[in-house]
Amino acid sequence: MSPAPGVLRILPLGGLGEIGKNMTVVEYDGAIVVVDTGLMFPTPDQLGIDLVLPDFAYLRDRAADVQAIVLTHGHEDHVGALPFVLRELAAERVPPVYGGPLTIELVRSKLDEHHLLEVALLEQVEPGEPFEAGPFTLETIRLSHSIPDSVGIALSCELGTALITGDYKFDQTPVDGEPADVARLAELGRDGLLLLCGDSTNVDRPGIAPSESSVGPHLEEAFTRCDGRIIVTSFASNIHRVQQVVDAAQAVGRKVSLVGRSMRKNVNIGRQLGHIEIPEGMLVGVREIEDFPDHKLVVISTGSQGEPLSALRRMAHGDHPNVDLHDGDTVLFSATPIPGNERAVNETIDRIYQLGANVITARDAPIHASGHGYAEELKLMVNLTAPRYVMPFHGDHRRMRLHGELAESVGVPPENVFRAANGFPLEIDSRGARYGEREQAGMIFVDGLDVGDVEDVALRDRRMLSADGIFIVVATISEQDGRSVVPPELIFRGVPFLDGAGETLLDELRSAVEDSLARSAEEEIREISLLQDHLHDDVARFVYDRLKRRPMVLPVVVEV
Amino acid sequence: MSPAPGVLRILPLGGLGEIGKNMTVVEYDGAIVVVDTGLMFPTPDQLGIDLVLPDFAYLRDRAADVQAIVLTHGHEDHVGALPFVLRELAAERVPPVYGGPLTIELVRSKLDEHHLLEVALLEQVEPGEPFEAGPFTLETIRLSHSIPDSVGIALSCELGTALITGDYKFDQTPVDGEPADVARLAELGRDGLLLLCGDSTNVDRPGIAPSESSVGPHLEEAFTRCDGRIIVTSFASNIHRVQQVVDAAQAVGRKVSLVGRSMRKNVNIGRQLGHIEIPEGMLVGVREIEDFPDHKLVVISTGSQGEPLSALRRMAHGDHPNVDLHDGDTVLFSATPIPGNERAVNETIDRIYQLGANVITARDAPIHASGHGYAEELKLMVNLTAPRYVMPFHGDHRRMRLHGELAESVGVPPENVFRAANGFPLEIDSRGARYGEREQAGMIFVDGLDVGDVEDVALRDRRMLSADGIFIVVATISEQDGRSVVPPELIFRGVPFLDGAGETLLDELRSAVEDSLARSAEEEIREISLLQDHLHDDVARFVYDRLKRRPMVLPVVVEV
Repeated sequence: MSPAPGVLRILPLGGLGEIGKNMTVVEYDGAIVVVDTGLMFPTPDQLGIDLVLPDFAYLRDRAADVQAIVLTHGHEDHVGALPFVLRELAAERVPPVYGGPLTIELVRSKLDEHHLLEVALLEQVEPGEPFEAGPFTLETIRLSHSIPDSVGIALSCELGTALITGDYKFDQTPVDGEPADVARLAELGRDGLLLLCGDSTNVDRPGIAPSESSVGPHLEEAFTRCDGRIIVTSFASNIHRVQQVVDAAQAVGRKVSLVGRSMRKNVNIGRQLGHIEIPEGMLVGVREIEDFPDHKLVVISTGSQGEPLSALRRMAHGDHPNVDLHDGDTVLFSATPIPGNERAVNETIDRIYQLGANVITARDAPIHASGHGYAEELKLMVNLTAPRYVMPFHGDHRRMRLHGELAESVGVPPENVFRAANGFPLEIDSRGARYGEREQAGMIFVDGLDVGDVEDVALRDRRMLSADGIFIVVATISEQDGRSVVPPELIFRGVPFLDGAGETLLDELRSAVEDSLARSAEEEIREISLLQDHLHDDVARFVYDRLKRRPMVLPVVVEV
Repeated sequence: MSPAPGVLRILPLGGLGEIGKNMTVVEYDGAIVVVDTGLMFPTPDQLGIDLVLPDFAYLRDRAADVQAIVLTHGHEDHVGALPFVLRELAAERVPPVYGGPLTIELVRSKLDEHHLLEVALLEQVEPGEPFEAGPFTLETIRLSHSIPDSVGIALSCELGTALITGDYKFDQTPVDGEPADVARLAELGRDGLLLLCGDSTNVDRPGIAPSESSVGPHLEEAFTRCDGRIIVTSFASNIHRVQQVVDAAQAVGRKVSLVGRSMRKNVNIGRQLGHIEIPEGMLVGVREIEDFPDHKLVVISTGSQGEPLSALRRMAHGDHPNVDLHDGDTVLFSATPIPGNERAVNETIDRIYQLGANVITARDAPIHASGHGYAEELKLMVNLTAPRYVMPFHGDHRRMRLHGELAESVGVPPENVFRAANGFPLEIDSRGARYGEREQAGMIFVDGLDVGDVEDVALRDRRMLSADGIFIVVATISEQDGRSVVPPELIFRGVPFLDGAGETLLDELRSAVEDSLARSAEEEIREISLLQDHLHDDVARFVYDRLKRRPMVLPVVVEV
């Protein structure tokens, strides 16, 4: 439902009470601007799910009112759902998509893969150049993050200005020499910012995040202590990190090779936009890696999160076509595990040790810097922008709580701090701010070609199947008397049958099925569904008694 | 195969190149002593598996030669496989099981649950009292760890003495006032230790682990800052930690309540053995918790690892029958996540924040101390015992490598450091030490009532089922002409069918099945298995084309 006229509404559809799938609907006088359209990767219990998106049913109903989609930066948790959102909206109206140059180029490549380029209106915007979207004047403000062209979004309407920061830090010495536009933030504060929606990711870390440019010298230092081949893994989108690896390689007289599809793609886009410079002759092709002298090469690879099909994971399993890890190699993790990936990363590291190579992580040397500001930077943001209202964004419940307390610690009155939740909008008008009525929010799953609601039944079935397997009984009975006409077929998958016991057990089970059918026939039960129910219960009981397992039991009764 | 006479053989069956399922076979002159019989908990990709045990096929063949099983301490990764090992060995010969008092009592309770008490010979041994087992003289040596009665095992034969440390630290101020027997270790060193097999768990942490008794004052300090109810979660077997929670509660004028089955069981056993003292009147029953004044109570709970059915996890989900977490409650995690449990622990913590309660972890205050010694303690162990040979135990590949380097750093010659692997024995005789021939080792799974080899097929099936579900096609064909006699049955589980598209798709699929059968009939294909193969391929192709998913396709052809 649309808010009343004169009400500015901020409706978070994702990213609150969770890490990922950031998406916010900003609405005023019937017009909508969407800030970010992010996704999340499934947890291990979301079996077989490919991607998790914010439930954007709200937008579907209001497609005609969407004036613009604005993206803060090019990370998947801020742009990954764009193809799915655009596909839904396109039927009604195609809103322009605004973002910084790299953001737009990454999105262009993504929409191309989804065959959506022809319907998309992509607009590169420069920080500080205002543009209009319905009743809003929008402006992007340069901030620092672990990907170039990261911005905050200022949305101004008659009521005032709301600032959605996206992910940010205040890096005083960024690699590209273009620090956050502190002056513009201060102007917003001086002019009276209505609302600040800020990144909560590192609110629990005291102090200030190390500068991105502090990483390079540490990489170089680590390189000088390596005799053999060097493999550096990092996020492919962290173009400035890749630049620093290239610079450090050059400083120690090594060449570089880029391994992993997204690494090559991102570096290509980054080079076209001037975000990264790789001198002529520095690049070694992947097929030349094994023939190149070990002490002259730095391989830059994807897979810092231990992702199953990534280049580094394949190397760790001795399964990469171009890189054969061995004794003397050193793998540097210029990244830290995203929460939840610890197991995959640790497994990858231990596999590398098993192959005889050495590993250096961010725990061993400061070869990584977070892209999210620490507590003092979050305080600086509040102090600079002096917002009337504060709404913590991008954080689980703990971080949102801590971010609220942090805002209070620098003087925001507790009643002006709104810890909302996905689907719970904040509504601001000339009289003040309050929570609005709940709107639909949650997650939708991408599973193969389907995008849909939480398929509870399918997921529950998959969980059951994954735990104990499935047991299928096919009984063929006579239309006349309901008795078996051929012996029942028993099929199982994912139920281990051990030793010789298997055949005896199957024979006994076959008898149990025949007995169950005979009993039903005697009781003149002829309705198929009822027959199947009886068969299910009898077989499930037998299997549990004998195996102490509860596989899914699926009886199929065919009448001939 | 038994080693030659005069050869001391150390055959690790678990715990090398991994964290968990520690088990070692020590053999001399045809006689075997087993040190520890541990288990591991399954990883998320070991779908539906209950427990992972070391493959002890080697022992099965040599059951008659097993003289003793000796346990270093009562943790599951050192004793959990005992019921399974004993059940196998019992047919041939029941070896006595030795361990410290708490170890034996915990094992007694475990064997009781497995109905194995009547066949077991359990022997409490005191540190420093030697006992015989075939050609070996055994002695346990008091060490410190996060469970009382932890010991190292010295195994002496004509050739010399091997020391298997189990898990240990050198705690100078243990809670029970009984530090590690450094003097005895020094004696072993003076007399010439042949082999040291040492815990590698914390080899990557510099310095010395904090003393267990350092935790109590920090708990008390944290308690004084809590106004509402306090919940402390820790391992139930960490009896001295529980003692310190009780003491801190008493110091701040609070009573305690024990929540979680294993917490009550372990405290009971601990009280009987004199390891923990809880003053008269300090204990509050679980059913009184909600009626007790919040500021007068400390709840001690299981669930520090976010285990699915644990008391704390249930509280975090608002699902515990006796504790209703709320605003004002503070939950203290007096434990750190075991690698791999980070996600479950973080989820639990965030759920607690969502309920409005506060959380303090070991990152916020020093309310936990590891039970494993850090690098300087591992060096002290090597220096004290001055072993001729060193074999790192209890660690993944990384830690074993670091432990080997640590031993070299304190003077052990590199050629005397043996980084073995499960199944690869070290053989020592009067001429020296070398790796012996590989023996069977690996993992076996407990799944329901079955204990067996890695059921690759069942696990692969479960993985497939869990990712994309299952599609079952039942075709009933005529014996005469191979054509369908009733329409095919289509059943799917774990395959989401969305919107109205489902029925159309099913109709089309039914046609595809009929077509496939008709084609086979025309080609006069009548062999059931071949018919099923064709049906499988046709259906799988159709489903993938339409859904871009690869569910397991299971065709069943019944001939009538």
